[in-house]
Amino acid sequence: MIIVLKPGATQEQIDHIAERLSKVGLKHHVSKGSERTIIGVIGDDRILSAYPLEAVPGIEKVLPILKPYKLASRDFKPEKTTINIDNKVTIGGDTLVIIGGPCSVESEEQILSAAKAVKEAGAHILRGGAFKPRTSPYDFQGLGKEGLKYLASASQETGLPIITEVMDPREVDLVVQYASIIQIGARNMQNYSLLKEVGACKKPILLKRGLSATIKDLLMSAEYILSSGNPEVILCERGIRTFVEVTRNTLDISAVPVIKELSHLPIIVDPSHAGGNWKWVAPLSKASVAAGCDGLLIEVHPNPEEAYSDGEQSLTPTKFINLINELKPLVKLMGKII
Amino acid sequence: MIIVLKPGATQEQIDHIAERLSKVGLKHHVSKGSERTIIGVIGDDRILSAYPLEAVPGIEKVLPILKPYKLASRDFKPEKTTINIDNKVTIGGDTLVIIGGPCSVESEEQILSAAKAVKEAGAHILRGGAFKPRTSPYDFQGLGKEGLKYLASASQETGLPIITEVMDPREVDLVVQYASIIQIGARNMQNYSLLKEVGACKKPILLKRGLSATIKDLLMSAEYILSSGNPEVILCERGIRTFVEVTRNTLDISAVPVIKELSHLPIIVDPSHAGGNWKWVAPLSKASVAAGCDGLLIEVHPNPEEAYSDGEQSLTPTKFINLINELKPLVKLMGKII
Amino acid sequence: MIIVLKPGATQEQIDHIAERLSKVGLKHHVSKGSERTIIGVIGDDRILSAYPLEAVPGIEKVLPILKPYKLASRDFKPEKTTINIDNKVTIGGDTLVIIGGPCSVESEEQILSAAKAVKEAGAHILRGGAFKPRTSPYDFQGLGKEGLKYLASASQETGLPIITEVMDPREVDLVVQYASIIQIGARNMQNYSLLKEVGACKKPILLKRGLSATIKDLLMSAEYILSSGNPEVILCERGIRTFVEVTRNTLDISAVPVIKELSHLPIIVDPSHAGGNWKWVAPLSKASVAAGCDGLLIEVHPNPEEAYSDGEQSLTPTKFINLINELKPLVKLMGKII
Amino acid sequence: MIIVLKPGATQEQIDHIAERLSKVGLKHHVSKGSERTIIGVIGDDRILSAYPLEAVPGIEKVLPILKPYKLASRDFKPEKTTINIDNKVTIGGDTLVIIGGPCSVESEEQILSAAKAVKEAGAHILRGGAFKPRTSPYDFQGLGKEGLKYLASASQETGLPIITEVMDPREVDLVVQYASIIQIGARNMQNYSLLKEVGACKKPILLKRGLSATIKDLLMSAEYILSSGNPEVILCERGIRTFVEVTRNTLDISAVPVIKELSHLPIIVDPSHAGGNWKWVAPLSKASVAAGCDGLLIEVHPNPEEAYSDGEQSLTPTKFINLINELKPLVKLMGKII
Repeated sequence: MIIVLKPGATQEQIDHIAERLSKVGLKHHVSKGSERTIIGVIGDDRILSAYPLEAVPGIEKVLPILKPYKLASRDFKPEKTTINIDNKVTIGGDTLVIIGGPCSVESEEQILSAAKAVKEAGAHILRGGAFKPRTSPYDFQGLGKEGLKYLASASQETGLPIITEVMDPREVDLVVQYASIIQIGARNMQNYSLLKEVGACKKPILLKRGLSATIKDLLMSAEYILSSGNPEVILCERGIRTFVEVTRNTLDISAVPVIKELSHLPIIVDPSHAGGNWKWVAPLSKASVAAGCDGLLIEVHPNPEEAYSDGEQSLTPTKFINLINELKPLVKLMGKII
Repeated sequence: MIIVLKPGATQEQIDHIAERLSKVGLKHHVSKGSERTIIGVIGDDRILSAYPLEAVPGIEKVLPILKPYKLASRDFKPEKTTINIDNKVTIGGDTLVIIGGPCSVESEEQILSAAKAVKEAGAHILRGGAFKPRTSPYDFQGLGKEGLKYLASASQETGLPIITEVMDPREVDLVVQYASIIQIGARNMQNYSLLKEVGACKKPILLKRGLSATIKDLLMSAEYILSSGNPEVILCERGIRTFVEVTRNTLDISAVPVIKELSHLPIIVDPSHAGGNWKWVAPLSKASVAAGCDGLLIEVHPNPEEAYSDGEQSLTPTKFINLINELKPLVKLMGKII
Repeated sequence: MIIVLKPGATQEQIDHIAERLSKVGLKHHVSKGSERTIIGVIGDDRILSAYPLEAVPGIEKVLPILKPYKLASRDFKPEKTTINIDNKVTIGGDTLVIIGGPCSVESEEQILSAAKAVKEAGAHILRGGAFKPRTSPYDFQGLGKEGLKYLASASQETGLPIITEVMDPREVDLVVQYASIIQIGARNMQNYSLLKEVGACKKPILLKRGLSATIKDLLMSAEYILSSGNPEVILCERGIRTFVEVTRNTLDISAVPVIKELSHLPIIVDPSHAGGNWKWVAPLSKASVAAGCDGLLIEVHPNPEEAYSDGEQSLTPTKFINLINELKPLVKLMGKII
Repeated sequence: MIIVLKPGATQEQIDHIAERLSKVGLKHHVSKGSERTIIGVIGDDRILSAYPLEAVPGIEKVLPILKPYKLASRDFKPEKTTINIDNKVTIGGDTLVIIGGPCSVESEEQILSAAKAVKEAGAHILRGGAFKPRTSPYDFQGLGKEGLKYLASASQETGLPIITEVMDPREVDLVVQYASIIQIGARNMQNYSLLKEVGACKKPILLKRGLSATIKDLLMSAEYILSSGNPEVILCERGIRTFVEVTRNTLDISAVPVIKELSHLPIIVDPSHAGGNWKWVAPLSKASVAAGCDGLLIEVHPNPEEAYSDGEQSLTPTKFINLINELKPLVKLMGKII
């Protein structure tokens, strides 16, 4: 950490800072420049995060040198993390993992029909929401436990592992019984009670980036899960909120290579929520694969017009099959398999 | 709702849309213009929110006419909502309500000392966090139940009502026993499980705007609480995330008059989190009062340098007293009392 | 255009609005709903853009139906625009056009060396700035006319057409003599004097999207050039400003398919400015090609460490050649040639 | 400047960096920490801005210590700049300067009528655009030279100094003959040719913040004017572009105290463009005064409904007079006069 002093900072102020650093066991080095004096802090200064140095008189700004996340960083674990799902598919390895299915589980028939279509297209994992975070309290809130049961029978029928969202720490125990992967939605990315709860369970977690989360924020939320004892975290870029008006969100495609450099965790992309319209799903999927992502999370509905939620961004089974077929040579070109 | 068709939409497509509208009991009116055909939907089309019209062939875009929130709107309730706190102060009325106190409860002495300072300055309510949402899992997470007890004794000693944050639906019952106002933090603004839980309790709720929440989003989250049966919601503007680099967040000062026009709910401002540094608290507080807010939520710490969290944005008791004194004539000028 | 009235709008207000519409030759249709009265405007209501309807009493909001740009839209010209550059390459057709070269022309040797490297790698066009828009007045501002001459000899030597930026309407005549394509930089996207000036010249224009420009804004700026008489406009996505902290800007990859749907103009991507670091150029280039762009604009410098500007985001010639080679099979897969 | 090395940076890389620093006359100090080696650069490292250190192998990031602007900073000139306008009013001093008038000059009668109303209300300066930057090429582009003449006669009649915008470096000489203050619009904040041109003239410049400009960007643009020889720069906050949907832009109210701390230049606020609707002008004006601004730039039109531009955000003369009257006691409270 580098502490930059204000012009005119007094020796008394410098001594006071030095004393604070010594108190927590950190050494330092004072360097007087022509326009500013700076203090270099020596040692693992992450322990200073609890101390508001910027409240100390004489300090202009504090520049961190080290990253605030540790377990999630490449510095800590240089080799890539791979996550095995039910001995059926591995995320973060050679396979470009395709997760498909409807936004919400609406009925036993609907999810089974979706599961068969998704399976036929060659996808690896079935998605479907039983607990739904909806902006409006008047919108469909999901079938709850019944939805989980329908997911389970669709899984049994097709052999596809299941990913489904959990919104409430009280429902983690229930969801764990049905899901192969637990999803944390974008709006809950900084719901720390929930992160700690899923950090204590034994299932892989797919953590969606929040609408206004920086890369650092996303990795800090992953750190919550990792530091609670669960090493299996899959990150998911799903678009951020900007001033752009045509698409629902703005897919931050750079997040794919950036996260691959900063972290060892797998990174997948959700082109359905990023674009907000089925029209953009194909080009955004291709872009994501070309940028090097580990997988795609795509909304597929047997009949999007009748969907209870997110119909406008769902692919029909036919469009989904076509997309997977178009992706295959691209995936191969990227040195992966589908 | 107005449905704008694509150029070249067919009669068959128009008939299909008409049929869908009829199915849910809505009338419509087709109007063929020179470049676009539009369909006006007649009746309360909010029931269409569950139907993804944009997935229907031939539709270019859908323009909503009505606001998606109802209970939170001025259309629904023209007169302003006032919220009585422990028969001591009313929020949303003639008093500019001042809430002060530390970010975190750190010890019995610290919160008592803060409470006394805040009381002496003329503030109405004491704030202090027992459960803390922290970006890093390695940062201080709050004293929990012990912190609530310390708050309770500080309240008893000073007579100040208490506001404190709840992060987990499982902790609502506990927090309700100690707090006069329950705070929902910015990161939990769309934690719908938590919103429903506090919507079912009998205490006023202070709902902080999320970092990337639009005004509509904020009012929709208020709608969750209101529609769960709790009519006492206080909205709080605390800065949004933008590209601006000097301040921690960007205070959206316009939100004050905008919310006063769109909603009957009281709106208060948190200048401490908006600016992220104690230096900006005074000017932002004055701006907020001048813009017409109903109150201020300000971080005050007996010794900011030693604070476990947010020290850089906390006022010392002396600075807080000075600020309140500077605010008094301004508040009076705005036709309010402090 | 749809005019939504406030609840309680009077008949007198409706009549007043009707009269205003009649004055400019527009018909209308009043529709009284249960909660709002709306007025549908019939005819080409773009003439209303000069009339501030939202200032008229009784109006809550105005919803446009038609797009504000005309010449730039697919509605106006359904077939894609192709732009021939010096009979050497066509932008917007089957070729994925590669434009490479340094940010700034620094010397005759430097630009010649860059031109040869770019040519050898298989690029089609040479870029290089003689007039440089720099955030700081103390930074290198470009060699001006001398730089243009160096570009010309590099072009003669290698046969590569040249693209270079113009910043000042007084310099358009000069730059036109040297460049095959005139570049308008992001900061000048809404410099309307400059847009009109290049709209009056006979050279293709590459128009870069501004840092906070919406898709509509970009197309409106293209409309300035098109309506000034120059039909050859190439659009360029180069990243927008968001809160994301790791990359210099956020590449809005969705802009590629969105612009292809809304407009007939070619769209190319500048991954160097979008990411701001050479590390991200390869993945962002691949993503852009996979998303369907018509070309790439990439910074290449013989010796990035010594570059007067943008060195950190420039590829070395070797890295550039490797990238082009990696792109070739991907371009082929997308049905294009390089 | 602090250079942070990558983990595993070699001695050879360190030597290479040291050599580069020596070449430009800078000393340095290497400090090896437990996880990172850092190099502190000693001397005025602003000369390094032309050298892309981040392109040098082994460097992870570069942390600037000094601000990139000099003439605009408080470090350089601690006392506040005051700017005398025609010996009639001083900006940056004890007067809260009110600038009022229409967006566009539309006719001799219109601007004269506006000028009289503005004068009567007690404003100090008349605004009115003769050259108009409009998003659409089909919108009213201003009356040009004729508009300047109308402004001049309105000024003669009322004695009010004039501020008007210049968009093109070729028009600076003309505008200088008529205006007492030259306005640079938000879209031209980084039009460096224009900045240099007005930097060479002898009139005060009002520089509007760009829609996505950081505080640093704004001060760097001011630096262009200052370093071209013109010391009289007035900064203007007029709202930034964010995701907020109700207001046209988001007024960054914090910019007022922040700029007062970082710079000696006066800062005024334009609440009309920030909010985009006359309804928000009064609360935003009050907030700006309370935050400490040096003046307000407000759109006033004799008949907003008939305005050629920005009618929805213009005050009528009556509303303007009422606003000024409401502001008077607030201005007094802030220790200023109106």
